[in-house]
Amino acid sequence: MITLTSDFGSPYPAAMKGVIRRHTDAELIDVAHDLPRGDPRAAAFWLRFVLPEFPPAVHCAVIDPGVGTDRDAIVVRAGSHAIVAPDNGLAMPPARALAAEESDIEAWSIAVDDPASETFHGRDVFAPTAARVREAVDERAAGEESIATDPEAVADALDAMDDLSPASDPFDLVFPEPSVERDGDGDAAAIDGEVLAIDRFGNVITNVPGELVRGRDWVRVDGDLTPVAETFGAVDPGERLVTVGSHGYAECDVNDGRGDGAFDLRPGDSVRFVADNVSL
Amino acid sequence: MITLTSDFGSPYPAAMKGVIRRHTDAELIDVAHDLPRGDPRAAAFWLRFVLPEFPPAVHCAVIDPGVGTDRDAIVVRAGSHAIVAPDNGLAMPPARALAAEESDIEAWSIAVDDPASETFHGRDVFAPTAARVREAVDERAAGEESIATDPEAVADALDAMDDLSPASDPFDLVFPEPSVERDGDGDAAAIDGEVLAIDRFGNVITNVPGELVRGRDWVRVDGDLTPVAETFGAVDPGERLVTVGSHGYAECDVNDGRGDGAFDLRPGDSVRFVADNVSL
Amino acid sequence: MITLTSDFGSPYPAAMKGVIRRHTDAELIDVAHDLPRGDPRAAAFWLRFVLPEFPPAVHCAVIDPGVGTDRDAIVVRAGSHAIVAPDNGLAMPPARALAAEESDIEAWSIAVDDPASETFHGRDVFAPTAARVREAVDERAAGEESIATDPEAVADALDAMDDLSPASDPFDLVFPEPSVERDGDGDAAAIDGEVLAIDRFGNVITNVPGELVRGRDWVRVDGDLTPVAETFGAVDPGERLVTVGSHGYAECDVNDGRGDGAFDLRPGDSVRFVADNVSL
Repeated sequence: MITLTSDFGSPYPAAMKGVIRRHTDAELIDVAHDLPRGDPRAAAFWLRFVLPEFPPAVHCAVIDPGVGTDRDAIVVRAGSHAIVAPDNGLAMPPARALAAEESDIEAWSIAVDDPASETFHGRDVFAPTAARVREAVDERAAGEESIATDPEAVADALDAMDDLSPASDPFDLVFPEPSVERDGDGDAAAIDGEVLAIDRFGNVITNVPGELVRGRDWVRVDGDLTPVAETFGAVDPGERLVTVGSHGYAECDVNDGRGDGAFDLRPGDSVRFVADNVSL
Repeated sequence: MITLTSDFGSPYPAAMKGVIRRHTDAELIDVAHDLPRGDPRAAAFWLRFVLPEFPPAVHCAVIDPGVGTDRDAIVVRAGSHAIVAPDNGLAMPPARALAAEESDIEAWSIAVDDPASETFHGRDVFAPTAARVREAVDERAAGEESIATDPEAVADALDAMDDLSPASDPFDLVFPEPSVERDGDGDAAAIDGEVLAIDRFGNVITNVPGELVRGRDWVRVDGDLTPVAETFGAVDPGERLVTVGSHGYAECDVNDGRGDGAFDLRPGDSVRFVADNVSL
Repeated sequence: MITLTSDFGSPYPAAMKGVIRRHTDAELIDVAHDLPRGDPRAAAFWLRFVLPEFPPAVHCAVIDPGVGTDRDAIVVRAGSHAIVAPDNGLAMPPARALAAEESDIEAWSIAVDDPASETFHGRDVFAPTAARVREAVDERAAGEESIATDPEAVADALDAMDDLSPASDPFDLVFPEPSVERDGDGDAAAIDGEVLAIDRFGNVITNVPGELVRGRDWVRVDGDLTPVAETFGAVDPGERLVTVGSHGYAECDVNDGRGDGAFDLRPGDSVRFVADNVSL
């Protein structure tokens, strides 16, 4: 299996699929091709959320604002998964989610021929590399399915590929941790967080762990008193709320509306949650 | 085969696919993931249109405004098809379209563990259930393809699943019938209909059967004289028309424009067609 | 393999897939379903870009502003590929890209039963024809993979289909060539081109070959001095630039913005590039 992720929209990913089909019949599954343009951080957030659901696979992820510069192209192994991506850090957060421990992550650089300016790296570099990684692992596992899911075997297959060489220091990307002020009882009194991503519905996903807001009735978001609820339906249509999304983080949302507009928050913005035990 | 339908956009459905791949290699086909948000009625309309084209399959359809409430999750068998969905009625109109007769439809409740608030039901309930239904049917049919398309065998496979129990009274959703006033000749003189859905192009799909408008030259839509035509090209760009869509219903459209804006109609709105035999 | 291309959005293409699955298990790959509505020229542009990446396949491409008129439905063979499409010219530019030479292209008309007005030609004509072409080629190749990629064998399979008859003069669609004025040194001094397509990002793709602008520092676009660059990052966010896309043509773009708005250009518009060797 090869999963495909990009910010290309359509029909560019189809060109990648055509190229892959010249190498291998491996199943192709789209993760998303409408991710925020040129934003490796958003891609890392979503891939960290989605990829751990998959059985061992090759993941081709091309969000590449550095295309045309001298940024490397890499393959990152995490457990028995392999992520083929530009070396801009997007592969590392999902790799940490896929690997049992940090030591089970390693990276290779992809040797890329001097690119002409009309090179489409998705089609000309990342897709064929993903296909060849898939082939290399499948050949090593020929006839014995379990080998394709053995981290050692995947590592050996990657080591044996001619155009891969160990990458000692791939670019990393670490999501910020919120800063938490606690009250005398040890409860969170104020949390300075950051917006990690906005989803299709305008829900504002922060880096604040859900357990810091769950169970409260109200919280101040950048000063404004906002109800905390488990479901959108707990507030009237058009009203703001704080909830905990399926990724486990606090979200700033609007029932039947867009949280990004209502809270005026964008990816990377700071957001301050202050405890408020108002009962109305 | 498992089809997937939701209002999740991307990349959430990819998480569902990953989970399914941990259970079964069954083919995955997307019906749509951009259906109107939280609107089981629109989903029912589209599924009734699309699912009957498929050979027997498992259909996972998650449009779920009641997530977080105590709504059930169900499996509905219709002939040799199975629909896995929240119990909000969306499964019933397509089930009636898939089954030869009403008596060939039956439903089961899915036992769901007490969900934590960060549960993503698409990923954690509906996708794994669809995968296990697919597995159960395929195992029963092992080596004999015809069994997977035999309604009795599908029913037996569902009956044998541990976490399914018969649902005596699943929520239903019935599309309204238009009310028709006829003239002395028995022809439709006035029709009070309702908007069932708006498609991507802004075409306003009503519940008025196409044969009630087809063959006329003009009809009044909420009072405004509007040409009836078989093709958009029969009127100038930007002009309004009434036509009959591939689903067989009268539509209020604009050539090279959006009917929903021009006619000011939204899903659920009433719309009145009055015969007008003007010849110009 | 069958690829699918349309301007239908969703969920209409799923109905086509259901129909195909009643005929054949061939793999289905989406090229795009969000192509500009009713624009065979844009579809031809994108298919010419994407289809040559694929190994021999059947391509079902339905962008069909003439639906409901007496336009033919055709199958065009190009090498060992087959394109199933309305006869409006959209198949010919990709066919020329797929065939080694013009003489390796031939066309058949599809016999279509008198269509009722609620016919959905994508579902009722093109999808089943694509499925049956796939079946016909696969049957001819039974057990011998190489035959499915042999142009002669594909031609024979199509010739043997009951509802296909040779089409002597399919509609063609030829992309305009730019007109180039050269200076005393033979360099391009002024180029009158045309906009071929706008992509998802608002990048304006012209018919001007990249080599006519590449290597310059500046060019006047409809009179306005504009930098020429290999990457978007060479100019500030919000600034205009001319670059060469992965299709090899000059594009009018905006870094982190939309070129179509900034240059006020739409598909089919004329655009004039004038050499300007300003150094700043």
